Amino acid sequence: MAAFTVHTSAATSPYSPAGTAILLRSRSRAYPTATIRVSCSKTVVIGVAADSGCGKTTFTRRLASVLGGGAEPPRAGRNPGSNTLVSDTTTVICLDDYHSLDRVGRKAKGVTALDPRFVDFDLMYEQVRAIKEGRAVEKPVYNHVTGLLDPPELITPPNILVIKGLHPMFDERVRDLLDFSIYLDISNEVKLAWKIQRDMGERGGHSLESIKASIEARKPDFEAYIEPQKQYADAVIEVLPTQLIPGDDECKVVRVKLIMKEGVEHFAPVHLFDEGSTVYWIPCGRKLSCSYPGIRFAYGFDTYFGHEVSVVEMDGQFDKLDELIYVETHLSNLSTKFYGEVTQQMLRHADVPGSNNGTGLFQTIVGLKIRDLYEQIVARR
Amino acid sequence: MAAFTVHTSAATSPYSPAGTAILLRSRSRAYPTATIRVSCSKTVVIGVAADSGCGKTTFTRRLASVLGGGAEPPRAGRNPGSNTLVSDTTTVICLDDYHSLDRVGRKAKGVTALDPRFVDFDLMYEQVRAIKEGRAVEKPVYNHVTGLLDPPELITPPNILVIKGLHPMFDERVRDLLDFSIYLDISNEVKLAWKIQRDMGERGGHSLESIKASIEARKPDFEAYIEPQKQYADAVIEVLPTQLIPGDDECKVVRVKLIMKEGVEHFAPVHLFDEGSTVYWIPCGRKLSCSYPGIRFAYGFDTYFGHEVSVVEMDGQFDKLDELIYVETHLSNLSTKFYGEVTQQMLRHADVPGSNNGTGLFQTIVGLKIRDLYEQIVARR
Repeated sequence: MAAFTVHTSAATSPYSPAGTAILLRSRSRAYPTATIRVSCSKTVVIGVAADSGCGKTTFTRRLASVLGGGAEPPRAGRNPGSNTLVSDTTTVICLDDYHSLDRVGRKAKGVTALDPRFVDFDLMYEQVRAIKEGRAVEKPVYNHVTGLLDPPELITPPNILVIKGLHPMFDERVRDLLDFSIYLDISNEVKLAWKIQRDMGERGGHSLESIKASIEARKPDFEAYIEPQKQYADAVIEVLPTQLIPGDDECKVVRVKLIMKEGVEHFAPVHLFDEGSTVYWIPCGRKLSCSYPGIRFAYGFDTYFGHEVSVVEMDGQFDKLDELIYVETHLSNLSTKFYGEVTQQMLRHADVPGSNNGTGLFQTIVGLKIRDLYEQIVARR
Repeated sequence: MAAFTVHTSAATSPYSPAGTAILLRSRSRAYPTATIRVSCSKTVVIGVAADSGCGKTTFTRRLASVLGGGAEPPRAGRNPGSNTLVSDTTTVICLDDYHSLDRVGRKAKGVTALDPRFVDFDLMYEQVRAIKEGRAVEKPVYNHVTGLLDPPELITPPNILVIKGLHPMFDERVRDLLDFSIYLDISNEVKLAWKIQRDMGERGGHSLESIKASIEARKPDFEAYIEPQKQYADAVIEVLPTQLIPGDDECKVVRVKLIMKEGVEHFAPVHLFDEGSTVYWIPCGRKLSCSYPGIRFAYGFDTYFGHEVSVVEMDGQFDKLDELIYVETHLSNLSTKFYGEVTQQMLRHADVPGSNNGTGLFQTIVGLKIRDLYEQIVARR
């Protein structure tokens, strides 16, 4: 990862030097922002949108790995409740930190965390813009354990800033700051099946009715505020029930689509075999033996919210992860730096959810595309 | 075509020198066979089986073109009724010449030309074996115009002997002489549609009932004697109704399968994109615009009469024949000698039936595979 520079000064100095800090005032609170640019190159900003439990954390873990260096909480460690992950190249902030109500406050008002009226978009915009322009900020911290707002933490401008959460593309000003945006889209059927397996199985104690009720309760806000952000995403990873097992509702095997917007600067969509045509591919056969229900790929183009898109789809799962190299060979425009890099990345995170299916594959590929996008932006400067 | 040698002496001398001929006796007739080997390398023998009107002549025309030199009747020209085509490298004989009854005789006995009881397989075997071993033969000539047996003609051993007709794979002894065999298989629906268009349209005068009756009359013998030869074919070109136009019975657009047996010496099946897996491909799209109903390719493997086979399928037709180069690029193992040779061959015979669809494409490809097979056999010697 020679193209990435390390912000040693930023990493070792958790606060901006006294006297250089000014106050960036949001409507509700004030946080100091360093005025000194700690990076000569602007930070590239990536938005990752999804509902809770849809794999944002897994995705950012894969992304940080591709971008170089494992992600950890900020080294200052002042806030054990910090949601931020920092690596040599990348800082991932969680937009829950911009909740303007704590859990008690939301409960009192009877609103969900999905409701954008209680997200401080002014502060989010100002701080993301500040980081993008090379200035450090004091970002609020929402403690997911206590449900309270913890003391703020310093975020210094990294090479790549990832903002992940419920609303990275909701506010037009924040949206305009994004160099690339991803929406992780889990279909309702898969969401329900996964929640049932988690809450009735491992964690136990929940009835099917209570699980369905909790999903239904979130639905109006989800459909009103979260889902519409799909239309702004440069890439969408959509998880759907398999078509390989008739009548399946377990969703242990899934069908995953990578939907890539055409005409996005520094982003060339991935394709299978032949760019611009329509292809269905069942790799299982003479050279790759797959157990039931097999694997099926599809590639083609479509329109998505009025935009031309390329779509690569994988249904099924890998028996042995190293067989992925066979699939990788037939995908083009992967932005890998060496033959087999996708397979290597997938093997490195074999324990992470989705590593044997299209979620892991496409998350890894999007990570590589983001690295490439970053390098193209840097090269152009 | 440097690998092909020209039998000038054979081509200019219609008869074997007096005194060197011996008699090859069949049960019914006797024909002289030259004892002098006119070729130091054995003749490669190719069998082409099909019912009448199924494209054997078109196929042999394409084949002769691929093998080098246009095919013409034997130069001696003694028999204006000759069914034989001779080019520099290839001689195509028509197995109708081995009918043991003329048209009047068949009519008197109430038998069809499909009935193998009235084919002289002994003579066919002896003469094909003689040619394969490098000896010239005096082959009978069945005159399709008069329905009578004309005086015999001399066939000198070519590099490649093609035996085309109703029964090239019927007799086990003849079958064993074949280095490669092809069956041209037109499905009943397509046969009927084509016959209706020809006999009710251009030629006129026939009712739908009479056309159906004539097909039905041939069916028992066809199913008993011709169709079973499919199981022995190394390659089958199967013409089926399109699946792109729901309910179509015109069969102007067709779906064509190239079925290739695995494990045939000197013959490596063609594949699309990825050998050994299953692929569906719609080339029409961003790079190739196709008018209704479009084009769809499929590739995969299957079993065919108990044999493992690879199958490439094309449904639809080309708007512009030079667009074929785009398709050619994605087919592998074509045995071409230069980039675009399939397209060049197709353009050369653009006026021949099937040039805009899978029949022409696969006939051309089989021609290239036969050239390759011949060259491999020669190289091994």
